[in-house]
Amino acid sequence: MVPAPTVPTARPLAADPDRLFPADPSLRPLARQLYERVADLPIISPHGHVPASWLAEDTPFTDPTSLLITPDHYVTRLLHAHGVGLDALGVGQGPLSEPDARAAFRILCGHWSVYRGTPVRYWLQAQLTGIFGVDVRPSAETADAIYDTVAAALATPAFRPRALFERFRIAVLATTDDPCDDLSAHRALADDPTWTGRVIPTFRPDRYLEVGARGWRTDADLLAETAGTEVGDYAGFVAALEARRAHFRAHGAVSADHSHADVRTDRLSPAEAERLYRLARSGDLTPDEAVALRRHLLWEMGRMSSEDGLVMTLHPAVARNHHRPTFERFGADVGADVPVTAEYVRALAPLLSDFGTHENFRMVLFTIDETTFSREIAPLAGFYPSVFAGAPWWFLDAPEAIRRYRAAVTETAGFGKTSGFIDDTRAYCSIPARHDMARRLDAGYVASLVADGRLEEDEAVEVVEELVTVNPRRAFRL
Amino acid sequence: MVPAPTVPTARPLAADPDRLFPADPSLRPLARQLYERVADLPIISPHGHVPASWLAEDTPFTDPTSLLITPDHYVTRLLHAHGVGLDALGVGQGPLSEPDARAAFRILCGHWSVYRGTPVRYWLQAQLTGIFGVDVRPSAETADAIYDTVAAALATPAFRPRALFERFRIAVLATTDDPCDDLSAHRALADDPTWTGRVIPTFRPDRYLEVGARGWRTDADLLAETAGTEVGDYAGFVAALEARRAHFRAHGAVSADHSHADVRTDRLSPAEAERLYRLARSGDLTPDEAVALRRHLLWEMGRMSSEDGLVMTLHPAVARNHHRPTFERFGADVGADVPVTAEYVRALAPLLSDFGTHENFRMVLFTIDETTFSREIAPLAGFYPSVFAGAPWWFLDAPEAIRRYRAAVTETAGFGKTSGFIDDTRAYCSIPARHDMARRLDAGYVASLVADGRLEEDEAVEVVEELVTVNPRRAFRL
Amino acid sequence: MVPAPTVPTARPLAADPDRLFPADPSLRPLARQLYERVADLPIISPHGHVPASWLAEDTPFTDPTSLLITPDHYVTRLLHAHGVGLDALGVGQGPLSEPDARAAFRILCGHWSVYRGTPVRYWLQAQLTGIFGVDVRPSAETADAIYDTVAAALATPAFRPRALFERFRIAVLATTDDPCDDLSAHRALADDPTWTGRVIPTFRPDRYLEVGARGWRTDADLLAETAGTEVGDYAGFVAALEARRAHFRAHGAVSADHSHADVRTDRLSPAEAERLYRLARSGDLTPDEAVALRRHLLWEMGRMSSEDGLVMTLHPAVARNHHRPTFERFGADVGADVPVTAEYVRALAPLLSDFGTHENFRMVLFTIDETTFSREIAPLAGFYPSVFAGAPWWFLDAPEAIRRYRAAVTETAGFGKTSGFIDDTRAYCSIPARHDMARRLDAGYVASLVADGRLEEDEAVEVVEELVTVNPRRAFRL
Repeated sequence: MVPAPTVPTARPLAADPDRLFPADPSLRPLARQLYERVADLPIISPHGHVPASWLAEDTPFTDPTSLLITPDHYVTRLLHAHGVGLDALGVGQGPLSEPDARAAFRILCGHWSVYRGTPVRYWLQAQLTGIFGVDVRPSAETADAIYDTVAAALATPAFRPRALFERFRIAVLATTDDPCDDLSAHRALADDPTWTGRVIPTFRPDRYLEVGARGWRTDADLLAETAGTEVGDYAGFVAALEARRAHFRAHGAVSADHSHADVRTDRLSPAEAERLYRLARSGDLTPDEAVALRRHLLWEMGRMSSEDGLVMTLHPAVARNHHRPTFERFGADVGADVPVTAEYVRALAPLLSDFGTHENFRMVLFTIDETTFSREIAPLAGFYPSVFAGAPWWFLDAPEAIRRYRAAVTETAGFGKTSGFIDDTRAYCSIPARHDMARRLDAGYVASLVADGRLEEDEAVEVVEELVTVNPRRAFRL
Repeated sequence: MVPAPTVPTARPLAADPDRLFPADPSLRPLARQLYERVADLPIISPHGHVPASWLAEDTPFTDPTSLLITPDHYVTRLLHAHGVGLDALGVGQGPLSEPDARAAFRILCGHWSVYRGTPVRYWLQAQLTGIFGVDVRPSAETADAIYDTVAAALATPAFRPRALFERFRIAVLATTDDPCDDLSAHRALADDPTWTGRVIPTFRPDRYLEVGARGWRTDADLLAETAGTEVGDYAGFVAALEARRAHFRAHGAVSADHSHADVRTDRLSPAEAERLYRLARSGDLTPDEAVALRRHLLWEMGRMSSEDGLVMTLHPAVARNHHRPTFERFGADVGADVPVTAEYVRALAPLLSDFGTHENFRMVLFTIDETTFSREIAPLAGFYPSVFAGAPWWFLDAPEAIRRYRAAVTETAGFGKTSGFIDDTRAYCSIPARHDMARRLDAGYVASLVADGRLEEDEAVEVVEELVTVNPRRAFRL
Repeated sequence: MVPAPTVPTARPLAADPDRLFPADPSLRPLARQLYERVADLPIISPHGHVPASWLAEDTPFTDPTSLLITPDHYVTRLLHAHGVGLDALGVGQGPLSEPDARAAFRILCGHWSVYRGTPVRYWLQAQLTGIFGVDVRPSAETADAIYDTVAAALATPAFRPRALFERFRIAVLATTDDPCDDLSAHRALADDPTWTGRVIPTFRPDRYLEVGARGWRTDADLLAETAGTEVGDYAGFVAALEARRAHFRAHGAVSADHSHADVRTDRLSPAEAERLYRLARSGDLTPDEAVALRRHLLWEMGRMSSEDGLVMTLHPAVARNHHRPTFERFGADVGADVPVTAEYVRALAPLLSDFGTHENFRMVLFTIDETTFSREIAPLAGFYPSVFAGAPWWFLDAPEAIRRYRAAVTETAGFGKTSGFIDDTRAYCSIPARHDMARRLDAGYVASLVADGRLEEDEAVEVVEELVTVNPRRAFRL
């Protein structure tokens, strides 16, 4: 480890070993004991956004900014909210020059205080201390020294993607992939005798289901070409999707991920589906018809899941690219996405009436609308054998929100119908800190049930262990 | 008490005397003191689903499964969510054979871990330990022994319904009844000189208001026959409902309960009501017209309540029978009902503008949509003298949810405009545990107000006592 | 101070010095230390409803009831919910006679228990003990003595509005004013060499934007007359609003406040705006058109804010005058307003796409729909430099709700994008208690982050200080 140069005025940076445990002295010791049972267990990450090519190629990370700042919209959005332009952070640009990378890193460190109370601060601090050995608090004064420390580390073999994968104790890592992706990186890993990790693709067909979107016809043509089928009629389109799912299954995929404005699964008659599909092909679909066909296609995805066993994960209800000028300049996924309300109960009734008790069908429900935790998600997961409550996602992927999630979901659905923690991140180095956060918080919640007289200690141990080892494997059929 | 046979590997089962009190050592002693003031006070249960015939006939319960598992969809739904078929639990069948009852009980005990963190586990444990003297944890190994213990108890006079009624210290027990019910069980109890308990019916007219439902015309004909009136026109239908309400009042009813998809009370003109009613009679009503007439009829129910004084309780917004195949095979009320959003403010404006300050009118608002606690229910109860915030209901009838309810409602509506705890259960033996749970949680919440410097200790004592003794009597005019 | 006469049975009334701090012994000492850093700092009140004339004229308050009860619908609504008529509290009447004022005060004191657990009780107690030196608990028996104590105080110079302003350490006080107000009271204060306080107006144009309301044409005519412009066409109407905004700016205004049924900002084409405006002038607008034009006008207000810099504050989604007979008898703002759901994300997209990153534009979002805290408000404030999360408002302006707000907002938006505490009150004497409440609660929340290992103590000090000194000045450009 390269030590950070001394900065006289710098304050220390260190991780509190009891962080995130309940402050209450009657709960903390038990929480700590429970946490210690799971602290070092391997990480199962069944949904995320790290590119498989990083591991296939094992290319060294180029600089601290490209690793920790630019691709992580959690980090960039709050700087933007404090007046920093996204361009200054490298967003929407090619590789950064060293001066630009360093300048962006200075901005982050100089704005360290804006992250107070946020999980971004928590994860960044955990990465700096736990992975890179930084021991001074980020600030304008310490920025360059910290940059140098991290950059020096990244230049060493121990910080290449594969070495970190092993150091992070990752047992399974899922990527998220376009149905037309040839999955060559996954294949390369599978074919590499020196690689023993498990990296699996996830089928993410959103754009092919958004039949009213500009560009859909081109996308559908690409799908046809990739699948080697015709998509002139609805049956052909469905066959193309099925072919690509089979391709993903063959490369290890266990789930298909879906994110649309809603999760309605209203089924159309075959004739109506065919009629709307042909209108989509000719570009004559009205917006309402496009929505109707997309909802039917989501039902169709569920039908396929009941057949091929890909677990269906739902990440709905985000107003994407809320700020038009930002989208026009920087593109998607730069932090300008904002949650809206979600509705699951009526939306999923058609699909769940058809496949909700099908032994081959599994569905994991995610939300960024907390109101659905106790009202909809827990009751659905508490009845349907196929339904699992997904871990808090995105804006809710934070200590207080996770505590609210457990408090809201457990009483109706218990622990066994929850997915286990899902990091869903592009920030590779934050994966251990995120899972560690969840383990600490779950230990605290379970300890509170013991203090409540609702759980015995031996059961508490089983719960925290199963949440890490059993739940994600059960929900994702791993 | 019949002791459970020893099972060598069994873990003990015991109730923590401090269960559900705040863990915080600065709160727990006061919470305990407050609880002790109310722990043994009689139970007032103004809304529930225990059949009056159980008490009228005082028939012994046949077996542990028929008492504790089969009729309780809280219990069966989570087993179903873990892959157990409802048929294996006796749902939708006639009386169970001893082997079938025992087999179902083994399933429950073998799945004990799936209830961790749920109130079902809490209530079952409280019943097993507190009523039946079981002292070993349910498991596959202990299932038969526990079954035998409970079955042996049920065969004794001390476990017949009337003996338990007395043992549970139930002061008032309300049942829920169809308007066409002759209430003979209630009359039998009233006429029985050996019976001194108070068991009152509740008027539940939902099906007669759902004018668009298949079977409504037959139901309305039955209502006419029972009431001895004609229902060929709207006035006759209203008169029939009024007559049955009077019948219920004469048998002790204090409330009418309503559960529809929403609580809108949009009033129709007399001519429009008549027109839609006649269409309903001829079966020519459109779905939209059926909803319009039902909403008008709910206003009419409020109007009647302002005249006859039956407290109007509202339990809206459940998507019933969400899984079509389960409904077709097992019928309603088997755990496949799921909450949806509720709206009270605009929905109730017509009714409350007409009767909200009427001295004879009372309304208790229940919800399974937590978002309405602070946004709608507390503000309505904090202005209208007629409106009370009902206790957490159904999925929210659990420790964490009850804590959220108090924290959300009290600041706007105080304690005095809440209903007191309502168990709303079919699970007879769970009644003491449910009320005890509420008393413990309220003691904890009130203790936190003292620690907050927001309440003096003498006031805290008054609050916890009034919540048990005064509030339900005030809200339900008992 | 005039001591309260001794009432033999009276219980003492005293403020707990540790009130509202976390009970947890591992948090309370740090919370106390943090609070002590800010306890005596000046009050910045950028939004409220105290009349400027009180300070301009410095007239003594007439009696305890007119000061503490009649104008404060927080106080009157809960008495009404317990059966007290608003007429008995002086609502909707002219000045009260001494016997009537005393009788109303007796009602309040006799109903002291109905406020248990509410912030109204907390604020009233803080005022009685902290400002008027009352040391006995209000009750039917102590009512007259307390009335006399308060009345005697009010008759002294130390309790006139200006003396209290100084005693309360108010640095800035914003009033809320009609665009046609000449702001003479603000001018009088500015011109008074003996007055050094800062009292600023707020532009509140709601009624002029509600183009479908009865009376709108008269209002618009008045606006034209006041602004000295013609409002026969849309351009003239816009010019009149701009002229009045300039007038407000010239008198110190920093913000414009808006409260409509929703916050949609759908922009119309110039031709469509003109067409609808002319229909509004002729009274031929349909309700849907009135809503469309009002939403466009709200966008127009945002456009003006981006030009003149008045911070746009949004207080949407209240069903006003819910009980028709109360409105007809007593008018508006008497406690019969009830929250409804709010939607910000899609509603504000047009305005924020146009001005969300404009350096001159600021917007503060308030809500009484808690579900929007983590789902909408925090994500918007966490991306747009112009958007700030407003303090809990109205029904949420209470300890538990404020705790929920911080827990829900901080993880996504941090502290820096929140407005600081806003009292939004007509109850002048409650201002210190309300700000003190917020400072205590924020100290407790920040202490919990330290205990969580998420914040260092030196940072915690900075956060609580900035929330009081920096945040309101930044959000409101003070």
